[in-house]
Amino acid sequence: MKHYDLIVIGSGPAGEKAAVKAAYHGKSVAVVEKESMLGGAGTNTGTLPSKTLKETALYYSGINESGLFGVDKELKRAADAEDFFFRKNEVQDWQELGIEKNFVLHNIDVYKGKGTVINPNRVQVVGVDDALLEADFILIATGSYPFQPEGIPFDGKFVHDSDTILSIKGIPKSMVIVGAGVIGCEYATIFAVMGTKVKLVNGHGDILTFLDPEIRDQLVDSMEHDNIEFVLNQRIEKVEILPEDHEFNVHAKLSDGDPIQADMFLYAAGRSGQSAGLGLAEVGVEIGSRGNIVVDKEYRSAVPSIFAVGDVIGFPALASTGMDQGRVAVSHMFGFGDQVQLTEHFPYGIYTIPEVSVYGLTEEEAKQQGYECVVGRARYVDMPRGKIMGVKRGMLKMVVDKKTERVLGVHIIGKIATELVHYGMALVDSKATIETVINRVYNMPTLHELYKYAAYNVLIEGHYLDAPTGH
Amino acid sequence: MKHYDLIVIGSGPAGEKAAVKAAYHGKSVAVVEKESMLGGAGTNTGTLPSKTLKETALYYSGINESGLFGVDKELKRAADAEDFFFRKNEVQDWQELGIEKNFVLHNIDVYKGKGTVINPNRVQVVGVDDALLEADFILIATGSYPFQPEGIPFDGKFVHDSDTILSIKGIPKSMVIVGAGVIGCEYATIFAVMGTKVKLVNGHGDILTFLDPEIRDQLVDSMEHDNIEFVLNQRIEKVEILPEDHEFNVHAKLSDGDPIQADMFLYAAGRSGQSAGLGLAEVGVEIGSRGNIVVDKEYRSAVPSIFAVGDVIGFPALASTGMDQGRVAVSHMFGFGDQVQLTEHFPYGIYTIPEVSVYGLTEEEAKQQGYECVVGRARYVDMPRGKIMGVKRGMLKMVVDKKTERVLGVHIIGKIATELVHYGMALVDSKATIETVINRVYNMPTLHELYKYAAYNVLIEGHYLDAPTGH
Repeated sequence: MKHYDLIVIGSGPAGEKAAVKAAYHGKSVAVVEKESMLGGAGTNTGTLPSKTLKETALYYSGINESGLFGVDKELKRAADAEDFFFRKNEVQDWQELGIEKNFVLHNIDVYKGKGTVINPNRVQVVGVDDALLEADFILIATGSYPFQPEGIPFDGKFVHDSDTILSIKGIPKSMVIVGAGVIGCEYATIFAVMGTKVKLVNGHGDILTFLDPEIRDQLVDSMEHDNIEFVLNQRIEKVEILPEDHEFNVHAKLSDGDPIQADMFLYAAGRSGQSAGLGLAEVGVEIGSRGNIVVDKEYRSAVPSIFAVGDVIGFPALASTGMDQGRVAVSHMFGFGDQVQLTEHFPYGIYTIPEVSVYGLTEEEAKQQGYECVVGRARYVDMPRGKIMGVKRGMLKMVVDKKTERVLGVHIIGKIATELVHYGMALVDSKATIETVINRVYNMPTLHELYKYAAYNVLIEGHYLDAPTGH
Repeated sequence: MKHYDLIVIGSGPAGEKAAVKAAYHGKSVAVVEKESMLGGAGTNTGTLPSKTLKETALYYSGINESGLFGVDKELKRAADAEDFFFRKNEVQDWQELGIEKNFVLHNIDVYKGKGTVINPNRVQVVGVDDALLEADFILIATGSYPFQPEGIPFDGKFVHDSDTILSIKGIPKSMVIVGAGVIGCEYATIFAVMGTKVKLVNGHGDILTFLDPEIRDQLVDSMEHDNIEFVLNQRIEKVEILPEDHEFNVHAKLSDGDPIQADMFLYAAGRSGQSAGLGLAEVGVEIGSRGNIVVDKEYRSAVPSIFAVGDVIGFPALASTGMDQGRVAVSHMFGFGDQVQLTEHFPYGIYTIPEVSVYGLTEEEAKQQGYECVVGRARYVDMPRGKIMGVKRGMLKMVVDKKTERVLGVHIIGKIATELVHYGMALVDSKATIETVINRVYNMPTLHELYKYAAYNVLIEGHYLDAPTGH
């Protein structure tokens, strides 16, 4: 029986970074992966695929360039579903290769097969590789899987979850997406831009409630402008796949009794932690709701030698946070003492069209924490860079503490919002004031000028008569 | 005779922002502009036009997307020079309208005509408007004009400077660009991408010597890869425009005697301050080399009531710095006390293809200042976001003080480098350490992940055995 310092189950972003960090410091590491491809949802069904499809949709639709340069472009031939997935597959292959290389470089042993925890220090692997492994620590980084509500006829052809949607053979003319969370909204905008008539059904009246209401409203406006129809406060009942001679493939009823039908249904009803069948409960690991493993701040489970990170522990279930959770967990296991906890705040990126990204406090959160707030806004269309890009929408909203003039949060909707937010993160983390934001020089023309103009807007909105600054 | 608190001569970025700031604080302001269009070089011949043409060239050439998505695109019809300038004209019109609106909004009087300073408080305007104006302060923001070396037959048709190049009627098959400074390099990459065979002639062996040598070498490699031929350590002599029956329109000799010819010559031999003929020397304003007005740190000239900002005072001659110089000058004139000086460092953005942007110290500068340096690098191709974009080149180089682990400078070449640099600016300004860079969570996939991986690379390169961190 081979002994390791660490066995990692799952090779997605969280598992990979944890394994590599431990190995980099001389620990012996084994990674167990049950799928034929390395990378987990980050590479194969989640993060990178949907983000690549977003770029693909923008490319094929040409909506960002249409009418902008005098002469429009057209595709040399019609693009089919294979073309739609072409770039995604390239990125996926590259990413898998990258992970493999990273493991080889760091002398990490990879076992292909299903890993089961048989005691707090042992993992049984069954599959392509069969092995019984022992280790000082076990890290569960098995990710999540799409939650499939009962009674829905998922067939991977007409009725999909967010995994099987990646194997469709054609772009549907119409689609019903159930669940207006981040995944549902991302796919809604991707398919809408590809020309699919999308209906987005949500059980509640509000979507993405963690967002600043103004930013959320702008996203909804933009989605409606792109012909996405919101069907709110409704549940879907009685989903039926229809015989071939019908106009639509799938028929259902809304809770108010109205029919709803489309060529394709996509369920984006959240994801569940991949914790079942791993032997975890049997050895004493506590499992919470939706299959999420319960861990402490060090990512240690109820069993001291077993840690868990990434989607399998639930919120925020992002590739970015998963990678750092992996690094933090390893730091605690072996007492490296370098990365002892995840930062309090993290940027949240939603890869819809347009993108949304936020960091720090919303206006409401700031008020709840006792701040008197001033809010400044700057619009993309007012920036020279925005005009060069020909954008019609987009805004940066800055939340500032009136007393100290410190930046508490930034909320961005628009192109490359997921990039732009990081400067805001630096402002919030370094307790920068709007004076700092204003006094700095920004490359002209760039979208980062939004920060400067939002800060000027704070001065106006806040009536800082003792600190006047023109713009 | 009308009296104002401030007369601004020139309505480019520096003049506009100064005028608006003063007016915002209740000062009466007049702006004098000799051209028919507002906006100066920032809007009409310099910053925005070349940056918009860069985007146009990328669009028409399709080099960023070619082969990336499975199906390539083609133009619906061939693009001509009019199409090449279409977007530039749109952006220009919009920008001019924006400036006009800004002036109207702030009750600023605009005089169209040539302004001459006839004493330290008076300006005579002659042109569309004729007026004699008086003011407590005069701000010279007249910008710069392309330096035209003597003996060159500039005809605005075959032999151009960086102003007349914007009126060409067709994209030339071949072009000789004289001067490999920022403007020369930017236009070289724009025309090369549009299919023009470009030769870039430079009097010295090195170009863009203020850049980190590694970044500069990568830019040169990339330009050579895009078929730009560097002709270094050579001067151009005897430029002749040839009769129509010749294969090329322009013929010249290099200083080594070799002939050099092309359809078009573009001189990008620097710019001179637009200070002549304004009556400045007559009232005691000191003019330095290349027509640059000499000012102190408050942007005050040798005459206490006359200030000067923007390109007319020389280095760095950027729209971004000019705008802030204008704001700082006004702050000092009227004692607002808010923006008392330009920040010590400013980001430098070069809008070549690929872009280059830098902030803070180069490795060499840091060593000269007594730092022991560690350098970390991260490549675009190794980032998931880079792979989605399909980039082949690009790098972020981070210069760190080995002792304190503080980030001293960032140097970026690649897509949206001019955006990415601002996060580095925040790091340097807030004296952030690589630990801070590493501990933060970055949206995945974004190019800002480059910062995290460059910081990891610093750990490796610096052999920080006491602070180990895997990646």
